[in-house]
Amino acid sequence: MPPDTSPLPRVAVIGLGSMGFGMASSLRRRGLNVTGCDVSADAVARFVAEGGQGAATPAEAARDCDVVVSVVVNAAQTESILFGEEGVAASLPQGAVVVSSATMDPDIVRRLAARIEAGGWLYLDAPISGGALRAAQGELTILASGSAAAFAKARPALDAMAAKLYELGDQPGQGAAFKMINQLLAGVHIAAASEAIAFAAKQGLDLRRVYEVITASAGNSWMFENRVPHVLDGDYTAKSAVDIFVKDLGIVQDMARSAKFPVPLAAAALQMFLMTAGSGMGRDDDASVARIYARVAGARLPGDDATPESSV
Amino acid sequence: MPPDTSPLPRVAVIGLGSMGFGMASSLRRRGLNVTGCDVSADAVARFVAEGGQGAATPAEAARDCDVVVSVVVNAAQTESILFGEEGVAASLPQGAVVVSSATMDPDIVRRLAARIEAGGWLYLDAPISGGALRAAQGELTILASGSAAAFAKARPALDAMAAKLYELGDQPGQGAAFKMINQLLAGVHIAAASEAIAFAAKQGLDLRRVYEVITASAGNSWMFENRVPHVLDGDYTAKSAVDIFVKDLGIVQDMARSAKFPVPLAAAALQMFLMTAGSGMGRDDDASVARIYARVAGARLPGDDATPESSV
Repeated sequence: MPPDTSPLPRVAVIGLGSMGFGMASSLRRRGLNVTGCDVSADAVARFVAEGGQGAATPAEAARDCDVVVSVVVNAAQTESILFGEEGVAASLPQGAVVVSSATMDPDIVRRLAARIEAGGWLYLDAPISGGALRAAQGELTILASGSAAAFAKARPALDAMAAKLYELGDQPGQGAAFKMINQLLAGVHIAAASEAIAFAAKQGLDLRRVYEVITASAGNSWMFENRVPHVLDGDYTAKSAVDIFVKDLGIVQDMARSAKFPVPLAAAALQMFLMTAGSGMGRDDDASVARIYARVAGARLPGDDATPESSV
Repeated sequence: MPPDTSPLPRVAVIGLGSMGFGMASSLRRRGLNVTGCDVSADAVARFVAEGGQGAATPAEAARDCDVVVSVVVNAAQTESILFGEEGVAASLPQGAVVVSSATMDPDIVRRLAARIEAGGWLYLDAPISGGALRAAQGELTILASGSAAAFAKARPALDAMAAKLYELGDQPGQGAAFKMINQLLAGVHIAAASEAIAFAAKQGLDLRRVYEVITASAGNSWMFENRVPHVLDGDYTAKSAVDIFVKDLGIVQDMARSAKFPVPLAAAALQMFLMTAGSGMGRDDDASVARIYARVAGARLPGDDATPESSV
């Protein structure tokens, strides 16, 4: 028997959106053999043009793979690409690992992981954060949990995608639970930043001065510092869309209701994201929540025109 | 006429609590002539023992002064020490400046300033932040607004008390408005941190790991980073009491209602502070909001004993 030369693993990346494309590129740059798959043939063609391999279906992408990285939007899409028609399960070799990055309810993660493990594969719960730029640079933060075998099998791919890998436990669902705590806070902080900056505008304060004072004070948050500049510039081109937090705070609220745990702050924030999405701004930047406060209360934000309409 | 030798101003500090005592000491250390006054004779005696001068009433403290620094708890106390019996107005020389540091509704600040200015004095709206330690070190942040004359007259005192002086406009009330924006955010962030850490406990997550992950992630806030360690240590000795945010979010809600501006996040946070204060923890540390979530939902926080009672 020839010696095991431990070749770099073959990886399939399912979902070539703003995060997945960057992750696939990072994997390829580190010398891994990467096949990309997306419902958009254009996205696959772009990845092939960059030197990657393309596949028309998850089943085709997963054939002969050691690692499948799932980077779709939610639990329903994850289930579909794994177990749906032409899904990963139809072709993935036994013993391979599924690295699942969509933000999901931990209960759903546990159910998906059980199905994967029952099929003879490994499952790594691996939600991500960091945004598209850091995805493209291979510098994501990954909040991972799963068995030692799943970590070991996925490690070359994780190392290529992450600047910071948190190993948060040996059970799938733990990574997802950490992620949801982060999303609860992030969503509340975006809504609070929007409430505060619009209230400052209503009082006629110099908003750039407010930004300067708050970012140096105890009222600061990562989200205030990151999102309020979009309001100051009147630029609501989506860096992260309102719809993301409609989804993620929705998951928080479902989890909390199921656990009989009251989340009045997250619930109030979700209502503000729903108002914003319902007003036609779901695909705009999530700092658009500030525009809803301003419209409701007659405050004027930078870049407001006379007829307050959605930018979509 | 002899040349003006511009002697250092005589300063009265009214209110020798945890902030005022440190501010009075900082002023004295810089060589200013400082008289302290407080309803507590013990506090005055401590200041005298340190080498300061003491006075029994605001009127006595303000006699011959150039600057009066008011460091009481709220608008009612501020009005009382200025215009009440034996108040500052009974003795303060014409042209002196009142530096007012209590957190107040900007409308009330404008009314107090108008009365002071009508009396022939100057008014500087000067809310503070930074805590007792920085007060004692002369390193507060001061959010000030007022006339150029008020700033000029107060400057030697401001320089002795502040590491960072924001000059936010020429109208009293502007400093207060900036401060209330900060308090809105700070209060919401304490409640959100409490909601998140107790929800994490309910899910059985390792809370020190949650702290590590969140403080390195987009869900972080100044308050999460500062207050959650109190929860991790199970130590609710008041560094800043629940009652402070019952008051300050109450002011935010009153201001917002008066302006017909909805503040659903601040309103939800206020309800949590009210529940906490109403449960007997008003004088405990404001991280006690996390204990209310935990008690309501049956989550166990570090240091919880079997019988969930207030520590007061």
